[in-house]
Amino acid sequence: MFVSDCLGLNSQGHLTIGGVDTLELAETYGTPVYVMDEDQIRRNCRKFKDSIDRYYEGRGLCCYASKAFSCKEIYRIVESEGLGADIVSLGDLHTALSAGFPAERICYHGNNKTPAELAAVIEHRVGRVVIDNLTELELLDRMAQAAGVTVRVMFRVKPGVEAHTHEYIQTGQIDSKFGLALETGEAMEATRRVLQMHHLQLTGMHCHIGSQIFDNEPFAHTARVMMQFYADIKRETGYLLDEFNIGGGHGIMYTAADTPSPFETFMADVSRTVVGEADRLGLKRPFVLMEPGRAIVGEAGITLYTVGAVKEIPGIRTYASIDGGMTDNPRYTLYQSRYTALAAARAGEPADHTFTLAGRCCETGDLIGKDLPMQALQPGDVVAVLSTGAYNYSMASNYNRVPRPPVVMVRAGQSRVVVRRESLDDLIRNDI
Amino acid sequence: MFVSDCLGLNSQGHLTIGGVDTLELAETYGTPVYVMDEDQIRRNCRKFKDSIDRYYEGRGLCCYASKAFSCKEIYRIVESEGLGADIVSLGDLHTALSAGFPAERICYHGNNKTPAELAAVIEHRVGRVVIDNLTELELLDRMAQAAGVTVRVMFRVKPGVEAHTHEYIQTGQIDSKFGLALETGEAMEATRRVLQMHHLQLTGMHCHIGSQIFDNEPFAHTARVMMQFYADIKRETGYLLDEFNIGGGHGIMYTAADTPSPFETFMADVSRTVVGEADRLGLKRPFVLMEPGRAIVGEAGITLYTVGAVKEIPGIRTYASIDGGMTDNPRYTLYQSRYTALAAARAGEPADHTFTLAGRCCETGDLIGKDLPMQALQPGDVVAVLSTGAYNYSMASNYNRVPRPPVVMVRAGQSRVVVRRESLDDLIRNDI
Repeated sequence: MFVSDCLGLNSQGHLTIGGVDTLELAETYGTPVYVMDEDQIRRNCRKFKDSIDRYYEGRGLCCYASKAFSCKEIYRIVESEGLGADIVSLGDLHTALSAGFPAERICYHGNNKTPAELAAVIEHRVGRVVIDNLTELELLDRMAQAAGVTVRVMFRVKPGVEAHTHEYIQTGQIDSKFGLALETGEAMEATRRVLQMHHLQLTGMHCHIGSQIFDNEPFAHTARVMMQFYADIKRETGYLLDEFNIGGGHGIMYTAADTPSPFETFMADVSRTVVGEADRLGLKRPFVLMEPGRAIVGEAGITLYTVGAVKEIPGIRTYASIDGGMTDNPRYTLYQSRYTALAAARAGEPADHTFTLAGRCCETGDLIGKDLPMQALQPGDVVAVLSTGAYNYSMASNYNRVPRPPVVMVRAGQSRVVVRRESLDDLIRNDI
Repeated sequence: MFVSDCLGLNSQGHLTIGGVDTLELAETYGTPVYVMDEDQIRRNCRKFKDSIDRYYEGRGLCCYASKAFSCKEIYRIVESEGLGADIVSLGDLHTALSAGFPAERICYHGNNKTPAELAAVIEHRVGRVVIDNLTELELLDRMAQAAGVTVRVMFRVKPGVEAHTHEYIQTGQIDSKFGLALETGEAMEATRRVLQMHHLQLTGMHCHIGSQIFDNEPFAHTARVMMQFYADIKRETGYLLDEFNIGGGHGIMYTAADTPSPFETFMADVSRTVVGEADRLGLKRPFVLMEPGRAIVGEAGITLYTVGAVKEIPGIRTYASIDGGMTDNPRYTLYQSRYTALAAARAGEPADHTFTLAGRCCETGDLIGKDLPMQALQPGDVVAVLSTGAYNYSMASNYNRVPRPPVVMVRAGQSRVVVRRESLDDLIRNDI
């Protein structure tokens, strides 16, 4: 009945996550608080891993996209499930390594890696570096040469496909800060160049066509475009690429209106295209990397808030103010994202009221959602906002000097803190 | 020649702030780095203070709006200039008190103050609490009674005026999470209610009509509406209010296209209306509070970045990637805000190139500006983005686990760190 498998109702009619009463969680940890179900995260990891076994004969690696939610504990969890990690900064790297994550299973991304980052990649022997541009390519080659090592690289390619939710477009030339273009010959030029370098080993190409994609065809289409490029490389240079990184973007449910493609048909469709095209074009069947972030953690998380003032503006709308907002979840402010919100104590009752959930920041746009169907709300009620596992904690700020909430993980009826609540002293730790 | 008085060119053609070479600052402190000119902040504080002396016979208090930029040092600076502070959270309060800021000069705001916040307000004897709604009013009265104290309060009122930059509208009923409406009688009802309370002392009304306002008339119009409300209160209850808080919103320059009203005419126009209406309606001339944030610190700050990759997409646009972005300045991502950007080494040369400044985050929308007129850029160049003193550091996040930059203050040719750069260990400090 909810947007996520990990949510339920107990005998008191309270919302549960991973079997734990959300009102008890709010009482124990205070609000606002992020709560994530570890079992659901692990189930999601296994879906990807099992599908790689099934559809690619085990020749692949699912790399968790850290930007969705990064902390030490998530690296421990995805590591223990055999996943790799897609990271984009020294902060990600430091967090992953501090949690004991193996560097060889890391893909290092980013459109503007600094010399310090490339040095760290070499020092820690990061498994794969996804090269974004020619400046970076030349710099990394020189640095690898100076260090006397060979670095495994992939190229970020713009395949000319851009997809979001239900639509996708094929563009002649994607207008993006990311990657090397196919159409202009830039990607082929970089390929010729890297094949002359002695300290970089090109394993394959990476592409990422968008986020929160509900259909399979954009992925299949991308796979066709990319395998054709692999064939072009083989023809023009004689080089056979080993790996293919198809990026992330598989959609999740935020509200009942969201209809992502079922995971099994997604994996079946895309893998059939990748393998079929590789065979048809006389290529190696590639070792496949994929980089889900939201699809691993998004539906596994919720945020609990406490309602303060409820303000009815006759004939317009009713605002319910909560004790968090854009500081812990900026996605409505950034993208007008839609969420499902519930009164945690009455989560099974009809959502026959309408509330605009307002954050506590001194900013008119600080809302979690406008005119949301909900159960009746009173001051003191606990509100649960669903599917907040991705791009909430990771995008949180201290705007208005609001401390960031803790992250609590539930598993098998138990809960534990995995990221502590920021203290007031944390806020001034770097102040002189 | 620049959008801010504190900027200049030295003999080498380098951009200076407070007389200090920005390339030297980038070299000394690394990039990205926020740099602020203390003298300009102090000049801005004095503009407001002097205007209160001149136009209100000294009967007023300029309260710096912390949300624009909050850290211990800014509280020390505005305190030493005799200003008060407008704050909105326990984090602000903790920061201000840690810097020795006097609680009696603080206005505590917010649409959803928690019981813990109201307790702190009582404990520290905060000068004024701006009450947002009836729930809060009742709660604070009970808490003040229990503590045996009297708390000075103002009411946040929606005056039915909303202004942004060049436009303002008068709405019958503002659709906002903030404040008590005039039109529905809510504000009058709250007034009658508070006059019966023994532990709250109503000093006056507060309103805030918007941000980055370039014209004076919306403020003058608001003053007329509010003074009429004061007259209504006098007539209906016999109570004469002492104070009037007109909020913030005076605009600043981000680009040459911005034309905020000159400060002197702004103060002259608004004060003439406030005083004139009070006299005309037989009211006390109020003690006037005003709450500038951006107008104090906005133009006093710049951000310095280093350019990494430069990517020309033929026929479309050229991206220059920098080593910061939406994590240190989310305002383009949030509002498509326009900024002036310069090549710091050639700041006086014609801006005859066009660059899209791309941040380093793994997010397509992570830009500082699209198609900005700039000097030519090469990898390694230092870029200065101007007027970033407000709503940059305060809204910064650790998205992509990017540490927040330091804040460096310059004064009289010297520079010093006032907020240290976050370390990689800071990022995992609360991780279990």
